[in-house]
Amino acid sequence: MFFSCKPAEMANLMEDEVFMAFTTYAAIVILKMMLMAPLTAYYRITRGSYANEEDVSRKSAEEKKKLLKAHPDVERARRCHQNDLENVIPFMLIGLLYALTGPELSAALLHFRLFAGCRIFHTISYITVLPQPSRGLSWILGMLVTFSMAYRVLSTVLLL
Amino acid sequence: MFFSCKPAEMANLMEDEVFMAFTTYAAIVILKMMLMAPLTAYYRITRGSYANEEDVSRKSAEEKKKLLKAHPDVERARRCHQNDLENVIPFMLIGLLYALTGPELSAALLHFRLFAGCRIFHTISYITVLPQPSRGLSWILGMLVTFSMAYRVLSTVLLL
Amino acid sequence: MFFSCKPAEMANLMEDEVFMAFTTYAAIVILKMMLMAPLTAYYRITRGSYANEEDVSRKSAEEKKKLLKAHPDVERARRCHQNDLENVIPFMLIGLLYALTGPELSAALLHFRLFAGCRIFHTISYITVLPQPSRGLSWILGMLVTFSMAYRVLSTVLLL
Repeated sequence: MFFSCKPAEMANLMEDEVFMAFTTYAAIVILKMMLMAPLTAYYRITRGSYANEEDVSRKSAEEKKKLLKAHPDVERARRCHQNDLENVIPFMLIGLLYALTGPELSAALLHFRLFAGCRIFHTISYITVLPQPSRGLSWILGMLVTFSMAYRVLSTVLLL
Repeated sequence: MFFSCKPAEMANLMEDEVFMAFTTYAAIVILKMMLMAPLTAYYRITRGSYANEEDVSRKSAEEKKKLLKAHPDVERARRCHQNDLENVIPFMLIGLLYALTGPELSAALLHFRLFAGCRIFHTISYITVLPQPSRGLSWILGMLVTFSMAYRVLSTVLLL
Repeated sequence: MFFSCKPAEMANLMEDEVFMAFTTYAAIVILKMMLMAPLTAYYRITRGSYANEEDVSRKSAEEKKKLLKAHPDVERARRCHQNDLENVIPFMLIGLLYALTGPELSAALLHFRLFAGCRIFHTISYITVLPQPSRGLSWILGMLVTFSMAYRVLSTVLLL
């Protein structure tokens, strides 16, 4: 008699619908977060604002001084990136544990979609300087989604 | 004959005591880290120190200039948050791999409890400005816990 | 009849060669990232540049003012650390999902080795101030590795 328990385990996680949904949205929000780096680089080049001397080594001394000053657009993109680090990574880590607790697919999708929507809207409202409270609300709603998942994780699995 | 290998795999991770303990402490330290954001927001509002112009759009030009200056309490909370990002996230990622290497429950709990204690004490000593070396020691001890888990991970699983 | 499906699941992840390779390189790049903290501390001490008043509490008022100023070497190490956070953590999270999609071991090793090499070279070129584009290229190549893994993840598992 033969049965294939061992080689199949890895694939099984990726056959679970909740885990597949988590994987999809996790990849989307991480890619969105990573795109903040090229955006910052774009602002650094177009606005002429660098952080490192070796990045402006071919310029004259006078130009260097100018190019090494901070520019508001660059700083804004960096703050947005930092806010992503502070929110997307906790979502990913809590979301991974949440997906393993076996929630309903519909409830999981609601959490993941809401969070992804919030973060995409947060970035748009940060970079295009939409009037408050658009940025503030998308930030808070995204955090509440993560708190809701953390609540389920802790109420399912609690071993102190 | 019937046996349920496939649907049970997901739940199995959450039936493992070490993984349950990891999940519990991981959720606790991530929630603690996330609470730094509302704390920073609280300091921004009470101390009147904002980073974005759209956050003070209803104020007069003179007030705006004042409100867009950095305040020591806000900067302190932000440094504490940054220190959490630099330490809690590596703990989470190394801890996840560590939990999968199947350590003794008692050893795992020792690591997780020590780390969680260190980080909670670190935040208290940072925000309430306790005299050194309280903040420094809790920071170093937390890192040593992560290094210890990384050592076990690498000595169990090494495939270069 | 007896078969041990349940207790073996945890270990199975760590018996998968791709997952073992991921674990190894993940631990290496996280340890590398964590070492930026002691390096920053080293620069703070040797260059005499601190961020918190309680760190210089035993000094005279005049000395304090001097020691609380930013130093270029400290700021450089901090930027390098921040760049690690922005790149190593997405690699870890995407890499974990990538390893679970069951890629070829050779393809997985290529991704992991290339990324680890890029980040180690990135740190060296950042800290020792190598002329550009050494830092820029290692940064971009590392990101492309993560994008390549994210592409495979999304093309294998897409549940929106």
